[in-house]
Amino acid sequence: MATKGSDKYRTKFTLDERDIPAKWYNIMADFKTPPPPVLHPGTGQPIGPQDLAPLFPMELIKQEVSQERWIPIPDGIRDVLRLWRPSPLYRARRLEKALGTPARIYYKYEGVSPAGSHKPNTAVAQAYYNKKEGVTRIATETGAGQWGSALAMATQMFGLQCKVYMVKVSYQQKPYRRIMMETWGAQVVPSPSPDTQAGKKILLEDPSSPGSLGIAISEAVEDAATREDTKYSLGSVLNHVLMHQTIIGLEAKKQLEKADDEADIVVACAGGGSNFAGLSFPFAADKLAGKKKKLRLIAVEPSACPSLTKGRYVYDFGDTVGLTPLVKMHTLGHSFVPAPLHAGGLRYHGMAPLVCKLYDEGVIEAVAVPQISTFQAALQFARAEGIIPAPEAAHAIRVVIDEALRCKKAGKRQTILFNLSGHGHFDLGAYEAFLAGKLQDYDYPAEKIEAALRGLPKVSV
Amino acid sequence: MATKGSDKYRTKFTLDERDIPAKWYNIMADFKTPPPPVLHPGTGQPIGPQDLAPLFPMELIKQEVSQERWIPIPDGIRDVLRLWRPSPLYRARRLEKALGTPARIYYKYEGVSPAGSHKPNTAVAQAYYNKKEGVTRIATETGAGQWGSALAMATQMFGLQCKVYMVKVSYQQKPYRRIMMETWGAQVVPSPSPDTQAGKKILLEDPSSPGSLGIAISEAVEDAATREDTKYSLGSVLNHVLMHQTIIGLEAKKQLEKADDEADIVVACAGGGSNFAGLSFPFAADKLAGKKKKLRLIAVEPSACPSLTKGRYVYDFGDTVGLTPLVKMHTLGHSFVPAPLHAGGLRYHGMAPLVCKLYDEGVIEAVAVPQISTFQAALQFARAEGIIPAPEAAHAIRVVIDEALRCKKAGKRQTILFNLSGHGHFDLGAYEAFLAGKLQDYDYPAEKIEAALRGLPKVSV
Repeated sequence: MATKGSDKYRTKFTLDERDIPAKWYNIMADFKTPPPPVLHPGTGQPIGPQDLAPLFPMELIKQEVSQERWIPIPDGIRDVLRLWRPSPLYRARRLEKALGTPARIYYKYEGVSPAGSHKPNTAVAQAYYNKKEGVTRIATETGAGQWGSALAMATQMFGLQCKVYMVKVSYQQKPYRRIMMETWGAQVVPSPSPDTQAGKKILLEDPSSPGSLGIAISEAVEDAATREDTKYSLGSVLNHVLMHQTIIGLEAKKQLEKADDEADIVVACAGGGSNFAGLSFPFAADKLAGKKKKLRLIAVEPSACPSLTKGRYVYDFGDTVGLTPLVKMHTLGHSFVPAPLHAGGLRYHGMAPLVCKLYDEGVIEAVAVPQISTFQAALQFARAEGIIPAPEAAHAIRVVIDEALRCKKAGKRQTILFNLSGHGHFDLGAYEAFLAGKLQDYDYPAEKIEAALRGLPKVSV
Repeated sequence: MATKGSDKYRTKFTLDERDIPAKWYNIMADFKTPPPPVLHPGTGQPIGPQDLAPLFPMELIKQEVSQERWIPIPDGIRDVLRLWRPSPLYRARRLEKALGTPARIYYKYEGVSPAGSHKPNTAVAQAYYNKKEGVTRIATETGAGQWGSALAMATQMFGLQCKVYMVKVSYQQKPYRRIMMETWGAQVVPSPSPDTQAGKKILLEDPSSPGSLGIAISEAVEDAATREDTKYSLGSVLNHVLMHQTIIGLEAKKQLEKADDEADIVVACAGGGSNFAGLSFPFAADKLAGKKKKLRLIAVEPSACPSLTKGRYVYDFGDTVGLTPLVKMHTLGHSFVPAPLHAGGLRYHGMAPLVCKLYDEGVIEAVAVPQISTFQAALQFARAEGIIPAPEAAHAIRVVIDEALRCKKAGKRQTILFNLSGHGHFDLGAYEAFLAGKLQDYDYPAEKIEAALRGLPKVSV
């Protein structure tokens, strides 16, 4: 399978569907020290499985705390993943040529899923376990709609009902994502909604509230907590969600082998962290085992929402309202509201605890990049490779191009792998603003972050 | 590669990129009688290559009239096709199960191209030959934008400039397709535009003209005819365009072999005819050779624009204005304006002459289906298989489901293959209308068609 002879220009490294990973990789097994405990928001004490039982099926709670290195993927999940997995690995030959770099650039393309991103990898798993434990209905929140559409598709596949609380301003401004969810049979309401006590209360105070992810989370959690038939579902941050995404990196490793190549640099954007974890954790495994010491793993975040590079590594709430358990993570403060970036999936105040632990231990790096330069990178990519990237994925591309140009300057033939986590078909409004010169960069919001950090909960662990 | 053992649920039949066909199939070689000649609109006499030279590069003109059965695909074209080809063949197991049919349903998915449809298969070839013959700029028209975006991407890949005359009403109502073209570097103007004499004339008469495909063709043709550096490009109907699409059917045949299966029924939607031809011509080859006599090839068209099933098989203009050469085809009359169907790609008054010849000889069948039932089929497909189909492709799905239900009734285990020619990411407005019960069917426009047929050009051949 070497890239020689008629394979000189090999571009696409596909796997057979028999090569869909049979097990998820659980990085918890490879940590030298256990991750900091998750704390109850009321008592400040470590929480147990029973605290999470009203919201999640037991199998997912077990996965959340499992120390097993490999967790088998049930056939019922793999049979849905077959619809688009294994996802292709591409060699970006045309981008390499456009850059004139000696570096080899590969990208794993998750935009081939019907929902257009990596999100269905965990949505399918979560829907499966809920179904298996007799749940008939799942409630969730969504901002721009990537997560909501992934879950709408997955619940439809398992015959579950799905209720999505969609941040009202997105509900109004991004009708296509809403219609997508409805096409897959989900019920979508603008949040705040009159369907929950939390929503009613906010509507009473401000009938024209535009909503927020924090409010939508509150509504979805209340919905799940107050209905016997309903559980709650989250699209990132949690350990089990990150683990479900590791099939991305596991496949990519096999595909790089087919390409007779090995990664020197692995890059992915990071909002809540599941996309970055999905690609990088199977590579981080090698580093945690003391191998591949020179391998670099780079998380890319927006400079307007730089939780890893500028946040504090402390206990904070996962949501903006302050209802969730407390987790130790790099955070900008749960009350921090990021600028209205087009990369909606990267507008999160914190970062997945597992990603934070790796960053804290120096296993991974992080870079923050400004908005306009990510769109410049996206445009260059689209014109070379065809695919129009989602604004989130464009953050990774920015750093990939920068690294490839560094290789050019240094005359180094390094191998760069990144995750093209989704296509930009529903983000063309952002491209229009960029092409018209109307896109703006946001200054590093130092004061806002400082203020938010002052509001961190007091925890003594 | 049989579907047994662990392959019991095989869903996806992929090919290696070495399996991208090395030759196009030219059905002209297999006709018993030559197709009717193309006539000059002025003289009524058969046209020769030189008549087409101002508009097309010579290699494409040669392909247009070639009698060779197999025409080699240059590496320069295959190297761009690698970006998404071979496209996957899926077994629609979940749809089969939802229908409870013993039929096996397969679909070839062309939505994996960066432009989201089968159109780039010919756009890339056309850009390649233009580049090779020293052309630096291509002009074309587009309605809803599928063709324009395919050509914008292809010209970008070969470093050609691209000017797209986009029907003004679409330009205003479908900004996403326009932005997509601009992202790939094309210049897009609303047609009628002040950039051509044809456009100026219409704007003078009616400054608020919404435009039409006929007007846009006139502008693009004038642009190409009056500039030394520019040629014209068309996305369907012509022989060479249909031939470029045959890689779809050639790949599908190989993939069905991998699935240990053989098609009994092949279905594709037909607007100009290139999508239907692309899938079906390699199968029609067997029938023309006297083999596979029971194999059914079905073209599906909208009942509001039923050129094959209700049109007349006579000479007519290819455009609505009456500027193009005259071709013998099933036509509703070049002045016929179809109802505003959401399947914009199927709103064409005529049909590719090669498809018409097969229909006339009884090699293929045709079915016309109404709009609402196509969206019912699309929804059922999306909920079973995940992918949200383009409204054009939904026409094929309607007939596939009908045939699968017929198999169920008759207890027949037939194999049905269809082309899912594109995704519906830019058509969610139509899904919204459907879900809200606001979609309408259009009565068979008998009187409008009769009137248009009265305006057919008088030709004596």
